[in-house]
Amino acid sequence: MQDVIDYLVGQQDDALQQLCEFLRIPSVSADSAFAADVARCAKWVRSAMEKAGLKAEIIPTKGHPIVYGERIESPELPTILVYGHYDVQPPDPLDLWTSPPFEPQIRDGRLFARGATDDKGQVFTHLKSIEAWMKLRGRLPVNIKFLIEGEEEVGSDNLEHFLKQNTDRLKADVAVISDTSQYGDGIPAITCGLRGIVAAEVRLTGPSKDLHSGIFGGSIANPANALAKICGQLVGDDGRIQIPGFYDDVEELTELEKQQFGQLPFDEAAFLSEVGSSAPFGESGRSTLERRWARPTCDINGMISGYTGQGPKTIIPSKATAKITCRLVPSQKPAKVLDALEKFLSSLCPPGLKFEFLRFHGCEAFVFDPTSEWITAASEAVKVAFGRPPVFIREGGSIPVVLSFKQILGLDTLLLGWGRNTDNLHSPNEHMHVADFHRGTLGSACLWQHLATVRRTS
Amino acid sequence: MQDVIDYLVGQQDDALQQLCEFLRIPSVSADSAFAADVARCAKWVRSAMEKAGLKAEIIPTKGHPIVYGERIESPELPTILVYGHYDVQPPDPLDLWTSPPFEPQIRDGRLFARGATDDKGQVFTHLKSIEAWMKLRGRLPVNIKFLIEGEEEVGSDNLEHFLKQNTDRLKADVAVISDTSQYGDGIPAITCGLRGIVAAEVRLTGPSKDLHSGIFGGSIANPANALAKICGQLVGDDGRIQIPGFYDDVEELTELEKQQFGQLPFDEAAFLSEVGSSAPFGESGRSTLERRWARPTCDINGMISGYTGQGPKTIIPSKATAKITCRLVPSQKPAKVLDALEKFLSSLCPPGLKFEFLRFHGCEAFVFDPTSEWITAASEAVKVAFGRPPVFIREGGSIPVVLSFKQILGLDTLLLGWGRNTDNLHSPNEHMHVADFHRGTLGSACLWQHLATVRRTS
Repeated sequence: MQDVIDYLVGQQDDALQQLCEFLRIPSVSADSAFAADVARCAKWVRSAMEKAGLKAEIIPTKGHPIVYGERIESPELPTILVYGHYDVQPPDPLDLWTSPPFEPQIRDGRLFARGATDDKGQVFTHLKSIEAWMKLRGRLPVNIKFLIEGEEEVGSDNLEHFLKQNTDRLKADVAVISDTSQYGDGIPAITCGLRGIVAAEVRLTGPSKDLHSGIFGGSIANPANALAKICGQLVGDDGRIQIPGFYDDVEELTELEKQQFGQLPFDEAAFLSEVGSSAPFGESGRSTLERRWARPTCDINGMISGYTGQGPKTIIPSKATAKITCRLVPSQKPAKVLDALEKFLSSLCPPGLKFEFLRFHGCEAFVFDPTSEWITAASEAVKVAFGRPPVFIREGGSIPVVLSFKQILGLDTLLLGWGRNTDNLHSPNEHMHVADFHRGTLGSACLWQHLATVRRTS
Repeated sequence: MQDVIDYLVGQQDDALQQLCEFLRIPSVSADSAFAADVARCAKWVRSAMEKAGLKAEIIPTKGHPIVYGERIESPELPTILVYGHYDVQPPDPLDLWTSPPFEPQIRDGRLFARGATDDKGQVFTHLKSIEAWMKLRGRLPVNIKFLIEGEEEVGSDNLEHFLKQNTDRLKADVAVISDTSQYGDGIPAITCGLRGIVAAEVRLTGPSKDLHSGIFGGSIANPANALAKICGQLVGDDGRIQIPGFYDDVEELTELEKQQFGQLPFDEAAFLSEVGSSAPFGESGRSTLERRWARPTCDINGMISGYTGQGPKTIIPSKATAKITCRLVPSQKPAKVLDALEKFLSSLCPPGLKFEFLRFHGCEAFVFDPTSEWITAASEAVKVAFGRPPVFIREGGSIPVVLSFKQILGLDTLLLGWGRNTDNLHSPNEHMHVADFHRGTLGSACLWQHLATVRRTS
């Protein structure tokens, strides 16, 4: 496929110009003042799909439209579902941008614009690679389905409904998303795991109103003391979560993964300095990367009770509330974890207090076996483009669409991040390295070639 | 002294009319719009003192003036310092008053007005009793000094300075304050103990800003979890405070006091229903009254960390703060308790967090030996007025002026409450039972007689 590569290399300047056109459209999904621009951007994506050789259409939703395009070569070939988004974060605060967010500018080998890396630049690599294949070969090595939504930055509210209504149309063998990052500069990565999450709130109510701590202190349960007592027992001094049964379903990393993580360059001092902490903390006997990516957590995200202004106030508060999230790892079940959390906290609650437990959302962890043929094929493609094989990493957060693909479409997702996490995503001066854009386009072109060889299991 | 009693009984209607005059002056110390009324009220008090036969003067302070009056009969007689305040709480919310707060009205045997019981009605009993003694005998059985301030409801900011500057002038054998309550309706009380207090704030700082709980969770210490952990260990499941050394200096109640408290009518179900708690909580093996009055506490008064709005937010907070007060009992030293609290909390703080400990104010507990001659004498006086002997109680809160009298003037204080804690102090429809006002006046008249017999120790 040297011809495809040569073609893409020859077309790099044009591709960059076209990406700039894409970036000039201020498709800010959060702000209704930009609604017409979001709609215009959807049309731009549709015509880019058509130009690449896909059959494309704009699908309205209750919010911003989805752009869908596909090219089916043969039922014998693997089908790849590419997901991305054409909407962008609001650009504020504008005064911190060196050049205007919607007037793309190249400086120091980097293309500055809102959406440059999140996610227009990364999405566009896949459109350009398809275009190259079609231009030179008139056909693709795989069947391709593109699903590019316009509401990722506002919670993808209408995506699940679309997935559920279109399970046949979206049928595929594997999904591809380029909306993550390389592990480090010039160290390409395939993200093989994401943690899941559960979120809850615990509310304790004691007296019906705040009471004078002198007149009443010592006679009734103080909900703030009680909240501290029960939430203070969630995590032990050794960093282990104390909820009975919490680790029952936790899947350990394979020896291979442990080894892979162990080999990754990781500067703990630089990490601590970046977050502003003076020491690491967490489960003993686990590396910082393992704790961030592959071990469950139990964090209090917020707490409030009683008086929180300046100086003292001599009250026994009426109420105390804590918000808690647990990050989950493969095989942990959200409902089971929430049950265990509620049981643990309520069992510790002293008498005389009303205990309430609110459940918010939950989703499972995602893991893609790094020894699978899909990963191996993707690795080969990345290696060609970046000149070195990717590392296999995980991320500690969740990507809801990956879970939706798994649950609704039964699909695993290849998370191939062409950008860098230093690209100022969601911040002023967002950019993408021009070299990363070109490498990503080559990687994408090679990806179709390599994925075509994978033995389909479905 | 039947002549004094008869005279006071004959004068009751007049006394009530004069009290109404006092109550009509809106001496709201908190609101500068009432400054002229506060000044007018000070003058009213001065002339009431003069009318009673005292040598009186208005003493300016940086805030509202102090009214001071005295009559020295003989260096051989005991000297009594009477403290009270002529300022009142703001009357808001006005629409909840049945009759206007500064237009006194008698309904159902109760005199309704702001300040009726707190503290004008109670102060006025002492002025009327002095007046009766002077009218009938031309002299008093004791030396009397009156210190009536105008800033009690705004923190008595200028009182300490005045006390320190006037230790000779204010020299006395005992102080009398009528600004507390009977134990229950028709059960007069002498308050023989007040708890002390220390107040502090603990601040934990982790990362330099709130972090994504997915990306960073498990790698560094979460200050909210840590705050819960360390503050959750302050009080054990048995209600005992876990700070090492905390109980070292705690004075137990005497057997007599225990017995006295044990005999007081106390309806625990009614108490719980009043505060809205479903069960009592506190140190096991101690009665609710003992825990409220004579045992130390450690209460979290407020806590805040991270996100406290609706729904979940997936962060590791940067900071977490708790406000803590301990109520102290006799012999506990505020500085020692704060040292122990700080040491305990800091020793529990996990690595990777910045620990800060802020100290606010502190004051010792106050206790007046219920077997002392002063108390016995005061009891006799109360018994004459109320037809039954007083019970000896304590209060769980602090009364700063009592501590100042002890520390600056070396005086113990007889806390003789003529009112009731159901008189709506600080609330709309504040009132004083007319019968309590009259009984208080008689009690006061008898008090001077009985205190005159006490053997002075100074």
